[in-house]
Parts: sequence; C-alpha cells; structure tokens
Amino acid sequence: MKKYAEMSREELAAEKTALVKQFEGYKAKGLKLNMARGKPGADQLELSMPMLDVLNSKSDCRADNGADCRNYGELSGITDAKKLFSEYMGVGEDEIFVVGSTSLTFMADCVMRAMLTGVLGSEKPWCKYDKIKFLCPVPGYDRHFAICEFLGIEMINVPLTEWGPDIDMVEKLVANDETIKGMWCVPKYTNPLGGVYADEAVRRIARLKPAAKDFRVFWDNAYAVHQVYKDVPLLNLLDECKKAGNPNMAYMFGSTSKISFPGAGVGFFAASKENIDFTVKQLGCEAIGFDKMNMLRHVRFFKDMDGIRAQMEKHAAILRPKFDAVLNALDANLAPCGAGSWVKPQGGYFVTYIAEKGCAKRIVALCKEAGVTLTPAGATHPYHKDPDDAYIRIAPSFPTPAELSLAMEIFCTSARLAFAEKLLG
Amino acid sequence: MKKYAEMSREELAAEKTALVKQFEGYKAKGLKLNMARGKPGADQLELSMPMLDVLNSKSDCRADNGADCRNYGELSGITDAKKLFSEYMGVGEDEIFVVGSTSLTFMADCVMRAMLTGVLGSEKPWCKYDKIKFLCPVPGYDRHFAICEFLGIEMINVPLTEWGPDIDMVEKLVANDETIKGMWCVPKYTNPLGGVYADEAVRRIARLKPAAKDFRVFWDNAYAVHQVYKDVPLLNLLDECKKAGNPNMAYMFGSTSKISFPGAGVGFFAASKENIDFTVKQLGCEAIGFDKMNMLRHVRFFKDMDGIRAQMEKHAAILRPKFDAVLNALDANLAPCGAGSWVKPQGGYFVTYIAEKGCAKRIVALCKEAGVTLTPAGATHPYHKDPDDAYIRIAPSFPTPAELSLAMEIFCTSARLAFAEKLLG
Repeated sequence: MKKYAEMSREELAAEKTALVKQFEGYKAKGLKLNMARGKPGADQLELSMPMLDVLNSKSDCRADNGADCRNYGELSGITDAKKLFSEYMGVGEDEIFVVGSTSLTFMADCVMRAMLTGVLGSEKPWCKYDKIKFLCPVPGYDRHFAICEFLGIEMINVPLTEWGPDIDMVEKLVANDETIKGMWCVPKYTNPLGGVYADEAVRRIARLKPAAKDFRVFWDNAYAVHQVYKDVPLLNLLDECKKAGNPNMAYMFGSTSKISFPGAGVGFFAASKENIDFTVKQLGCEAIGFDKMNMLRHVRFFKDMDGIRAQMEKHAAILRPKFDAVLNALDANLAPCGAGSWVKPQGGYFVTYIAEKGCAKRIVALCKEAGVTLTPAGATHPYHKDPDDAYIRIAPSFPTPAELSLAMEIFCTSARLAFAEKLLG
Repeated sequence: MKKYAEMSREELAAEKTALVKQFEGYKAKGLKLNMARGKPGADQLELSMPMLDVLNSKSDCRADNGADCRNYGELSGITDAKKLFSEYMGVGEDEIFVVGSTSLTFMADCVMRAMLTGVLGSEKPWCKYDKIKFLCPVPGYDRHFAICEFLGIEMINVPLTEWGPDIDMVEKLVANDETIKGMWCVPKYTNPLGGVYADEAVRRIARLKPAAKDFRVFWDNAYAVHQVYKDVPLLNLLDECKKAGNPNMAYMFGSTSKISFPGAGVGFFAASKENIDFTVKQLGCEAIGFDKMNMLRHVRFFKDMDGIRAQMEKHAAILRPKFDAVLNALDANLAPCGAGSWVKPQGGYFVTYIAEKGCAKRIVALCKEAGVTLTPAGATHPYHKDPDDAYIRIAPSFPTPAELSLAMEIFCTSARLAFAEKLLG
C-alpha cells in the first residue's frame, strides 16, 4: 500500500470511497464493543480467586508482630505487609505506609493535605498561594489531572516521549517558579503512552533544583511489575533522590489493583522515613488504621515477591494476545498508509495511537458511530484539551481477543478515513 | 458511708489515711491494666469470623445488579450494600454512599473537601475564610476534634447532657455567626457520655437557622444499633431536616467497625440525594470505587437488618457484664461518698466519670501509678483542654470482666483519694 501523503488526489478520493463503503458495512452490523476502560478481564480476576480461601473462619489473624488484624491499630500497616510492599517498591520497611484499597484515593489525600497544611518543609499550606501549579507529562492519566482540576491547581503540559518527559523543560520550569509544587509521573509503562522512563530521565528528575523547597514528584508506579512482553528496568526514584541530596522530594505510590482485585487490593505509599513519619502523624486524625484483614489476605496469598511475579506472569499470558491484536492491527493497517504513530508498550494497560493532528476527535466519533466505544479524545490531557487533537488511548484488557480484533478493524478503518478526509481537506 | 462533703476534717483525714494505705497495697501488686481503648474484645471479634467463609474461591462475586465486585466501578457502592445500609441509616437507596473500611476517614475527607471547594451551596471554599468554626458538644470524641485541630478549624465547646447538647446555646451561636460551618454530634450512646439525644434535641437541631447557608451537622451515628442494656430510639435527623426545610444540612455517618471488624468493616455516608449526587461527583477524582468485595462479604453475611440485630445481641451479651462491672463499682464505691457523677449508658462503648472539678488529671495519674491506664484527662475536649478538669472516659470493652473489676477497684480508690485530697485542700 502507498502512503496516503504520497497519493494523488484521485487515488486518495478513490481510497476514501472504498473506506466509506467498508465503514458503512461495519455500521450495518450494529456492534457494541468497548475499548475505553483499563479494566482487567474476567479471566484475570479469576487468577486471584484462591486468595479468598486464605482467610477463613479458622484462620489465625495475627500479623507477624502479633497484632490482631481484626481489631483497631497499626495505622501505617501491618508488619508483614510493610515487609512485602517495601520490597515491591524497593524501599526500607520504615519507608512505606500501607494504606487502603486504592492508591488513587491516597494520592488525592496527599495533595489535599498538602493544600490544607503543606508537606514536610512547607512554609505555608499550598492553598495559601494565589495559585499553585503541577507539571503534567502528556499524554497522561486523566484521574491525576482530575485531582488538580478539582482542587484548582493549574496544570502545565510537558511533552512525554517513550523515554520520559521533556526534562530540559521540567528543569527550567521548576527552577524559576516557586509556585510549581508538584509533578505527576507514571514512570513505567506510562499511562497511556506505554514507554518507560530512561535512567537518565529518572536521574535528572532526582537532581532537580526546584525553586519551591516543598516540591514533590508524585511517582505513581502503578505498573511496576506489569510487563506484557518484557520487564523493562526502572531506576528507583527514592534512591536517586537520596544520592542527589533530595531525599524528601519523592512521593511514590503503588497498589495491587491490577495484581489482585481492582478497587479491592492494597495501596501503598513509599517515601523517605522523614516523609513517612510526617504522614503517619498527619493521618492520625483521619484513620485509626486501614483494612488489615485485606493486607493479611494479600500477604498470605502472595507470600513474597516471587509470588507476585508468578501471578504477573499469568496476567501477562492473558494480556499478550490482546496487545498483539491491537499492535498487529496498527502495524498491518495504519503503518503502511503512514497514518499516525504509536509506541509498542512492553507492559501496562494501554496503547496510545497518535493520530495525525486534528484527527483524534473525528476517529473517536467515527468509531462510536460504528459501535466501538473509545476513551474520549482529550482525556489524555489536562482540562480534557489535547492541543493537537491527536492522542487516543486504546485499552485492550477488557474485551476478548475476538472482540478486540473486530474493534480494531473498525478503529483502523476510522483512522484511515479520518486521515484521508484531512488530506482531501 | 457518709458523704465526704459532710465529713468533719478529722473524719476525712482518717478516710484519706485509709485510702492511701489501700492505694499502696494496689501499687505493690505491680499490675498492668488498660481501660483506655474503645476496642472490642477478642470474643467480640470471634462473632464475625464466619464472615470470612462467605466469599471463597468458588463464590459468584456479582452484586444483585450484576456488577462484578472484583473489578472497577460502582463508585457509590454496590446495590446490595446500598439497600442494606440505607435501611440501617433510615434513608432512601439514593441517599447513601457506601465507602471504604472506616467512616472516620470519610468524615475527614468530607471536611477537607469542604475546606478546599466548599459543600453544596457554599459561596466559597471554607479555607477562604480567615477562620471557620465548628461547634463541639463536650465531652466528645477526640478524633472529631483532631480533624478540626489538624485543619485549623476553631472549636467552640457546647455543654452536653444525657439528653443532648445545650440547644439554646447552639441556636444562638449559629444564628449570628456566618463562620460557624459545622457541628459534631454522636447522637446515640454519645461518645463518651453515654446518653441519647432526645427527640426535642434532634428536632431543634433540624430546625436550626444558621447564618451560614452551608452549615452542616456532622452526625456520627457510630452506635446506631449498639445497645448494651436497651435500644433507645433516636429520631432520624435527615427526616427531621426535610420536615424543617433544611434537607441538605444533615451529613450522617455510620460503619460496621463495631459490628464486624474494626478498621476492616464498611463505612457509609447518608444525606439528601442532592448532597449524595454532589459528593459522588466530587469523589470521581479520588476513587474509581471502594472495596466492593468487602461490601459483598458483609451483605452476604448479615443478609438484612435482622441479621445485624442478631449480631448486636451477641455483642451486647459480651459487653453487658463489662459495663456491669464498671457501673456496679461506681455505684458501690463512689455514689455513697458523693464523689462525682455519671450517666448510666444504655449502649455504646464508654462510661464517663465526671469527677469533682479539678480532680480528673489527679485520678488518671494515681491510676497510672497503680498500673491502670486510662484515656488521658482532657481527651474528651477540644485542644485536650477540659476547663473543669473533670471528665474521664472509661472504656470497658477490651479487658476481661476480671481485669475490669480489679481496675475499677483501683479507679474508685483513686477517685475517692483525689476527692478527699481536694476537700482537705
């Protein structure tokens, strides 16, 4: 196939006619397919069902320090869970706080507490500034941006590539603006682009010299062990921050939402001991303790990092054919005509299709017309505004491979049609 | 026995000498007893162990609307849990939001969101005032006060009796001060006094005419079904607020922390549909959904309100001898000598001993000397400051009845000694 950009106007018009015909054919089928949601499929959920047998009415419910997990106490998490999840996050056992069932809620809570009272070392609460700002690598995770939007925190777009955000830009921005207080990062299998922050990107983030002494990197390591094809190593931000003399700059988050049960897993927060102590003290008014029974259930089921890794192999085996379906469709149908680009993710939950400028909304609308629901265009950017109207997040995990193949046929046809329309003007 | 206040100086001095001797005898035993914590005892926790068998690897994990509780979604709670806990709270199914494992965390979250963005109908976020204030019936729950202290919300003491707070005072205060935005209430088996708000108190609270249009009553109905001796009926605040034309003034909270497992139960928030819709919308950035597996576990175990009531009968049977031990000791040893006063609670988790003014700290210190740990004096008041130095919270639930009897002997001796010291000057 010829690249569309190299076609004559007549060739392109003929191509468009063919595509419209194809598209009408799909429409006539009256399909209902969904690639909008980064939800694990039912077969992935089955992997964790044996966890439900781990605690039963005969179980001893004591943590390894003897604490009764059925009662109040142990605000920062049970000892067993701290041991496992500190290893997961690559930090010490006094550098972790095991929280409730989702890390997102705790991230929002961290930002809200910072707004109301400041973080360790703040001169004043963040809400006492006329305006504070967060840096947002784009494309990024819509719920991070929603937290900022909800709280009136101004968001500044920073371009993200496969190897991390534009660090030159980040360095310059934070060095000169005392009101830039935070930066959102999903460093591994980035949501939704699918790359992994390169060592140099992590090191340069750790070495930032922000004008704000209370600047924090919100490091949402949601996919730390979530390879689909290959485990790509990621430098440990806290280690690098310590080396750089910035130990308190890293706020790292993780959860088992996509290891065990989404929304019913265990979340955790990793940071310097000073940050953890500060946070535990603050949390004393908000909680007597998080759900220790669920922590115990997770620890007894997985036992150790090998247990988690074995589980993730099983997830990967289920996800691989789904990612294959998406990537193969893109390679076969869109690469040859030169429509858009994408990163091949080695893990995580998403593939991002970067359409030709101005085409994303049109593609999403075409797909909807033919019965395929995608995440709305713009969701990958702060304020739902993608200035290039180019990014589309594809979530392969929830549909079956068969549904996915069909949905991707429609997606590719829509993408080609939108591109042809654009070129024809 | 003669009342101390009626004794001659000589009689009192002799009494004191006898008490000191008795006290030294206790000290010599080197005991370690604890009546500080409102924690259920191990036998109470055993009551909920069969709940752990309800969900196992063979279970169907769908809510009654078909939602898979193992996956993301259902932000405001699963339909089954809404049904059960709306009945528990006496509200409609669209007037409830089932949240995470503790209601305290959600209460703090509600206050934080109000600070940062306001509640429904706020002209501006509460943090944009120089100072906002909450009314705090005293004695009250230390963690409510801790939330205010953490957020810099000024607390105003309002005297609480067995039948509710001083409503004349509440009416006057809220009518004239636009910066009074909230009021904490534990309306049933009040923490720690042990009374129940009378119908007239609830009605007058519902009819308040606050200067602040965004005033909220934080109604922490923590002990709604937690009778020890007798179920004392409580009017439903939301109903009364609707009748009074104030439907959005009530923020009601509850949880199963003292029904199933403390910290690993289910919390819920009940309010007008308008408030719930507003809250669900706000929460969208903080959570994708709370732990639905634990909701399902609770609903399938308790089934309905009869199931919850049957469980609470069992809790009451365990708690009754413990409350008996405390109340009998007070009746036998302190009533005759006229030392202090107390409410006989019909339920809940605490007994409050109201010592003669200026004696509470001394009593707590004497108990500590003899090996009995009590909640620190002052904990029942904002800023840990009890202006009368009179209130001591006694928590009978965690020790065994035998431990409790011994601890109460020491407590009563300490209370008499402190009173005798005070009278002798």
